[in-house]
Amino acid sequence: MQTIQTFDITFGDCDPAGIVFYPNAFRWMDTALHALLRPAGGHQVLCRKLDAVGLGLVDASAKFRHPMHDGDRLELRIAVTEWSRRSLTLGYEGSVEGRQTFEGREVRCLFTRTETGIVAADLAPLRTLLEAEDV
Amino acid sequence: MQTIQTFDITFGDCDPAGIVFYPNAFRWMDTALHALLRPAGGHQVLCRKLDAVGLGLVDASAKFRHPMHDGDRLELRIAVTEWSRRSLTLGYEGSVEGRQTFEGREVRCLFTRTETGIVAADLAPLRTLLEAEDV
Amino acid sequence: MQTIQTFDITFGDCDPAGIVFYPNAFRWMDTALHALLRPAGGHQVLCRKLDAVGLGLVDASAKFRHPMHDGDRLELRIAVTEWSRRSLTLGYEGSVEGRQTFEGREVRCLFTRTETGIVAADLAPLRTLLEAEDV
Amino acid sequence: MQTIQTFDITFGDCDPAGIVFYPNAFRWMDTALHALLRPAGGHQVLCRKLDAVGLGLVDASAKFRHPMHDGDRLELRIAVTEWSRRSLTLGYEGSVEGRQTFEGREVRCLFTRTETGIVAADLAPLRTLLEAEDV
Repeated sequence: MQTIQTFDITFGDCDPAGIVFYPNAFRWMDTALHALLRPAGGHQVLCRKLDAVGLGLVDASAKFRHPMHDGDRLELRIAVTEWSRRSLTLGYEGSVEGRQTFEGREVRCLFTRTETGIVAADLAPLRTLLEAEDV
Repeated sequence: MQTIQTFDITFGDCDPAGIVFYPNAFRWMDTALHALLRPAGGHQVLCRKLDAVGLGLVDASAKFRHPMHDGDRLELRIAVTEWSRRSLTLGYEGSVEGRQTFEGREVRCLFTRTETGIVAADLAPLRTLLEAEDV
Repeated sequence: MQTIQTFDITFGDCDPAGIVFYPNAFRWMDTALHALLRPAGGHQVLCRKLDAVGLGLVDASAKFRHPMHDGDRLELRIAVTEWSRRSLTLGYEGSVEGRQTFEGREVRCLFTRTETGIVAADLAPLRTLLEAEDV
Repeated sequence: MQTIQTFDITFGDCDPAGIVFYPNAFRWMDTALHALLRPAGGHQVLCRKLDAVGLGLVDASAKFRHPMHDGDRLELRIAVTEWSRRSLTLGYEGSVEGRQTFEGREVRCLFTRTETGIVAADLAPLRTLLEAEDV
């Protein structure tokens, strides 16, 4: 289960050093995840079907290899690298003109509301819904 | 009904020209409005009390007088400049070290869901709730 | 001189009311302007050629007609609506599935550094560079 | 070398699930770092003194423990946890009302331009400048 998405980096994504302000890399990672959920209806529809609050983040990291600039076309590859019972790991690889610019990772849980608070739900039903749409 | 709020401008708010990336000025205006709603419970509580979807924007504008930079302390004055039956006008004035940097304006409506769609509600109940907290 | 650009609206562009957080509309307007400058080399190259600091904003406004949501595909039309001697007016029209969602306007100047400070330069050389690339 | 900074979380920092959109946590971490550089003149002055391009990021990560909401006051503690010869590690701890909400980490290098490209400089001069201001 993986896709590649393209982002055209613009002036406003960059900082006074003229390079991408790094939290934007995480914003693009999150955007890529939501695009991955789209064929199965998107985040809101999936949460409704699964009676969940959200596919929330518990851990995120990125290693930055080369700076990115205004005018660069970022290709961002996203793949599910691991399905655990209650967490999902996503791997990201960003590149510009074939050269890796950053590498990222997110761990997410499907949070549901119970009588005793918010808990991480079993991911099997989410996996079924996502893989049914996978091509 | 007015307050002044302070924002410490940081590196990441600025663009490759070394000055504030302008959509951030609107972000601070929105932040100031939400702070204005806080003494009356905040946006979510007010919407619940008034059975509304949100105090949404219909018109926003700003004139930029002087650039702002990393390290500047922005003082942002917000005031309700007009209460109409179904819209509210807010005036903003941003300054750094006593010099005006921008001037803004927002027109907002309190949107509620009806059988025929989303409509702009009468603002009298909102005004009552806000002015009860005004000092 | 005009183009249409497409933006896929994502979860992170939206606020707790589930609609686009409005400063993002200005962010997309700025993105569209920078894309308009791209065929002529982009903002940085143009500033270098014209010995300018930046094509800075002096006035921005938008009217919001319909809310935008996660998953919407925004088509944003940008056009230069007026060339004055020292300022440039840009008109924006955003739509989703053929329905207008917002309309915007920016006034910009080409700022250059002189012995007495930053001033708005004559725009004729910029216009020549941009129109040379216009198709 | 450490400080605590306060951020008032606002509506626009949150997503349709009603909680902080996570890249903002990295934005606040970056903001905290720039505030840490402020007593020694700030990023721009330090880069000029050290003939550097920027104190750039090579690695960033965060673990999210509890969601943050509109109206929360975030206290963010930042500390230099390690000085290596050519990299600096920063530790972050965010809390709301005394409860940890996230924990973060950044590794940064001081990039300088040489004849053969951008390289990570020796950090000793930066450390001297920062510690001279430390109280």
